[in-house]
Amino acid sequence: MRKVGIIGLGHVGATLAYTLVSENLVDELVLIDKNENLALSEEYDLLDAEVFLTGKTTIIIQDYQALKDASVVVFCAGQISALGDDGDRFKELEITSKIVEEVAPKIKQSGFNGIILTITNPCDVIATYMQKLTGFDTSKVFGTGTMLDTARMKQAISRNVSIDGRNVGGYVYGEHGDSQFVAWSTVTVGDRPLLEWNSELGLESLDEAVRAGGWNAFVGKGYTSYGIATCASRLIRMILNDSKTIIPVSAYDEQATVYYGQPVVIGKNGIESYVECPLNEKEKESLKSSIEIIKNGLAKLPFKQ
Amino acid sequence: MRKVGIIGLGHVGATLAYTLVSENLVDELVLIDKNENLALSEEYDLLDAEVFLTGKTTIIIQDYQALKDASVVVFCAGQISALGDDGDRFKELEITSKIVEEVAPKIKQSGFNGIILTITNPCDVIATYMQKLTGFDTSKVFGTGTMLDTARMKQAISRNVSIDGRNVGGYVYGEHGDSQFVAWSTVTVGDRPLLEWNSELGLESLDEAVRAGGWNAFVGKGYTSYGIATCASRLIRMILNDSKTIIPVSAYDEQATVYYGQPVVIGKNGIESYVECPLNEKEKESLKSSIEIIKNGLAKLPFKQ
Amino acid sequence: MRKVGIIGLGHVGATLAYTLVSENLVDELVLIDKNENLALSEEYDLLDAEVFLTGKTTIIIQDYQALKDASVVVFCAGQISALGDDGDRFKELEITSKIVEEVAPKIKQSGFNGIILTITNPCDVIATYMQKLTGFDTSKVFGTGTMLDTARMKQAISRNVSIDGRNVGGYVYGEHGDSQFVAWSTVTVGDRPLLEWNSELGLESLDEAVRAGGWNAFVGKGYTSYGIATCASRLIRMILNDSKTIIPVSAYDEQATVYYGQPVVIGKNGIESYVECPLNEKEKESLKSSIEIIKNGLAKLPFKQ
Amino acid sequence: MRKVGIIGLGHVGATLAYTLVSENLVDELVLIDKNENLALSEEYDLLDAEVFLTGKTTIIIQDYQALKDASVVVFCAGQISALGDDGDRFKELEITSKIVEEVAPKIKQSGFNGIILTITNPCDVIATYMQKLTGFDTSKVFGTGTMLDTARMKQAISRNVSIDGRNVGGYVYGEHGDSQFVAWSTVTVGDRPLLEWNSELGLESLDEAVRAGGWNAFVGKGYTSYGIATCASRLIRMILNDSKTIIPVSAYDEQATVYYGQPVVIGKNGIESYVECPLNEKEKESLKSSIEIIKNGLAKLPFKQ
Repeated sequence: MRKVGIIGLGHVGATLAYTLVSENLVDELVLIDKNENLALSEEYDLLDAEVFLTGKTTIIIQDYQALKDASVVVFCAGQISALGDDGDRFKELEITSKIVEEVAPKIKQSGFNGIILTITNPCDVIATYMQKLTGFDTSKVFGTGTMLDTARMKQAISRNVSIDGRNVGGYVYGEHGDSQFVAWSTVTVGDRPLLEWNSELGLESLDEAVRAGGWNAFVGKGYTSYGIATCASRLIRMILNDSKTIIPVSAYDEQATVYYGQPVVIGKNGIESYVECPLNEKEKESLKSSIEIIKNGLAKLPFKQ
Repeated sequence: MRKVGIIGLGHVGATLAYTLVSENLVDELVLIDKNENLALSEEYDLLDAEVFLTGKTTIIIQDYQALKDASVVVFCAGQISALGDDGDRFKELEITSKIVEEVAPKIKQSGFNGIILTITNPCDVIATYMQKLTGFDTSKVFGTGTMLDTARMKQAISRNVSIDGRNVGGYVYGEHGDSQFVAWSTVTVGDRPLLEWNSELGLESLDEAVRAGGWNAFVGKGYTSYGIATCASRLIRMILNDSKTIIPVSAYDEQATVYYGQPVVIGKNGIESYVECPLNEKEKESLKSSIEIIKNGLAKLPFKQ
Repeated sequence: MRKVGIIGLGHVGATLAYTLVSENLVDELVLIDKNENLALSEEYDLLDAEVFLTGKTTIIIQDYQALKDASVVVFCAGQISALGDDGDRFKELEITSKIVEEVAPKIKQSGFNGIILTITNPCDVIATYMQKLTGFDTSKVFGTGTMLDTARMKQAISRNVSIDGRNVGGYVYGEHGDSQFVAWSTVTVGDRPLLEWNSELGLESLDEAVRAGGWNAFVGKGYTSYGIATCASRLIRMILNDSKTIIPVSAYDEQATVYYGQPVVIGKNGIESYVECPLNEKEKESLKSSIEIIKNGLAKLPFKQ
Repeated sequence: MRKVGIIGLGHVGATLAYTLVSENLVDELVLIDKNENLALSEEYDLLDAEVFLTGKTTIIIQDYQALKDASVVVFCAGQISALGDDGDRFKELEITSKIVEEVAPKIKQSGFNGIILTITNPCDVIATYMQKLTGFDTSKVFGTGTMLDTARMKQAISRNVSIDGRNVGGYVYGEHGDSQFVAWSTVTVGDRPLLEWNSELGLESLDEAVRAGGWNAFVGKGYTSYGIATCASRLIRMILNDSKTIIPVSAYDEQATVYYGQPVVIGKNGIESYVECPLNEKEKESLKSSIEIIKNGLAKLPFKQ
């Protein structure tokens, strides 16, 4: 049977739970939050939906021991109010790193030996910290990273060329944050290089459109939930299905000794391999800068690399 | 093609939009909110999900004219903060009735001639008010009413007898509020009368369990979203599919001249017929009281019946 | 992860495989047929569909050893041409019982210790025979039995009263064959006894309509596939979800020492309990006759009860 | 509401009907076959499934007039037995062209003005013939063409590189038949050109693998159904959703005056635009030959271009 745990039931965690229950993607779902009443309410709210669904999901709340035989644990505990008006995710780090310090030992103690998927921001620093504190293999811990940003890039191009976003290929690299960048050399539409597609598309204006997409999704809500929850549910399906799917996530780079967004192959063992794209010089520079910024975030945390 | 509109993008409206997009239940979705930035953010957040889905939903925001050829408009604008700590939905009426007064003429002016589904609380009063102010046929306007409470009743029994809630039949009648009641004479498990099933199940403790279910879903969140959004999406499907499904909703009673929760048949024309259950004397009394309470709510509103 | 095996890739087995793959209900699917080329073709045909689906199913063919860690094995090997023009499923017994004799030891040798679901006709005799030859607990082996006939009963009533068939309750009992009968005392519409619903519905004409439904589904195709494959996929979901769902299947009766159609509770352990309905005298007689017919079929097989 | 018609209920048409009903992709489904009993049986078999599904599809059989307000009509009438042991689809033409002559006027007379999707083989000749005999705009008539072959190409590569087939891009061009060819210059894995991915992949052996894929799907069944039905259901969804998806289908080429497989953009108006890929010289040659073969097929039919 399929079993998944979610730690942190804010907008993202709860929406992910709803997505998994609606699709009956799992047979058992473990929900954990520091606020027990919230976990209880989400359980009941989800069960109210169940009478109208085809599948039935067993929901277990507030029980770390129940993670023992789960295939995936999603870590999405955080505090969006810490984000600040300028959208700087590093402001969340002080709080979210503390949550990792509290949660990581509990995950380990449960006997869980599956895959940890982190969503909490700043995503790349938190993924790195979670791996360090659990000591799990780097292939078994990763963050959603630029998977969401890549989806936004595809939608931005979709709007510009009036083509289904699923026909857009390519990757956003680096930090799930301001220093991320679209690797335009990888972007395709209908399996053709973007620039062949329509020479009037200025990369600068597209860069702007991608950035605006993320901001638009955030500005009126004060958080985002549907895009990221769908990303996470697809990653869970890829793991459970062992689908060997190429997708950009926040993955560990041995040389850089940090996690950042890059394309990898996802299967039942987590990150099964890395996909190297021949970035151009400008993109390589951008990646270097982005890695530096993630490292700077990490440097504030109390562990030695 | 299938087209639906949602007016009000709070927790319920936004979750319903996500549900419809995730299931690709409609081809076009119109989203309207008094906060334009919120509508924009929900549009972008939903589109971020789309790259990972099978279907594609065209989203139109803030355009009443776009409702003209929609099959269903869902009204779920409200203000949960008005609810008050005691959970009394009538406290919301002052605000929500004003919203109906503002929105109803705009729906009419759009040329829309489909079905209006109301979720906003107090549900039965608002459904009645919406019908009065639009002048639409009573079969074309109805509220979600006790559909959600009925789901909660089924889950409460499911927990007690360890049987799938979808095997539980029967209806909650009356107000979507404190005066509602389970018509125990209609309740079945596995198509057998509940009381034959297990004589040790006390109706009073089950009554308590049903009430607790609703409260549990609310208390930790301060609102509920997943159960009600799933209810609404199923009602929309029933209308689009013309499925002639029996389900309890807030429907108009000509004699009582108000809406309240009772089983009806839902199809492409909205409420296609009523299902009369032989309530016992106690249940009839409860229904009478519940109707009175709804009428008292209505009496505060500025229209003559 | 979820794993299921299918033995026999005729119309039913192949359609079931397609259903499981389309819904991504399982992560691994083992397909076995006496015709290796057929298994290969089904694998490739299913994989051709996959590019357009959300999930990915690992397909393994012709490998009994791969059943070892499966949760469910569906047995649907048969030979529809043996059925004969009169639709008498007992004519298939000579061939299908031989297939059970061949397959049962292979299932055991694989180390499989999940649940065996049999569809092959005559369903009740084959379910009994499969249980005897594997020696598995009777709770772990059962047949689809009158689950399909019950669905047909619901549709027949649905047509007569113009109400969604999912609002019809009740059970068809006994043999999945000519001696089956609708237990009209259990039948409800909208959770009310059928006869209260519409006194003009003659049970005889409904009996006729149910019978005609099964025949209509068969006569033009020479077999049926979509209804039964959907039944089987729902049973698999009930087992994987541990949903404790009440549904009529071909289940073992210790007193009668045979399998026949009756309502039970399905969960991860197979048949978790039995649901006793208070049949009336006429229905009890019909059940007795139906059991006799199944016993007569069994008597032709080379095993001692 | 969504309405679709299917003409021809062989393996492909019936499986497509099952797919549409299972996914509740349409609200009304019109089924037509020369064999009325077959249409009746498929209707009943599909309805038997419905009780276990979430949606409800209204099924109408044998009524051309019911096509009037449908969005899409799928033409898949044929006679697989005419195919011959060597798999040459042109042998079917004598029979299938006659069916087009019979069906096309009936579609026109119904007042239908949506989109005709043809699957019947030889696909490109039949698509051309259907367009000529209905006189519908070439954007409103198209065949599934090399969409299926492209899926097979993706699966063949997927097996070779152990990567999810949905990460493979590119197109099969030309005839849905022996003269088709993979335009290797368009093929990507993980949005990178195939040959960069793995230089050891020989195109000849991959060409062989693609061909073998189609043959493997056919050889043991004597027909194929699941891949093609899924293709067709996705095309229907693209039209209903107006998704502007790039996909290769059998589309009209004004210069060549025939239909053949090439990438186009599908939306609510059918083929909304063409996607030109810069084929290399060898591919251009292959396309020319393939067009010639389709023209030769057409030349046997009694109409003047």
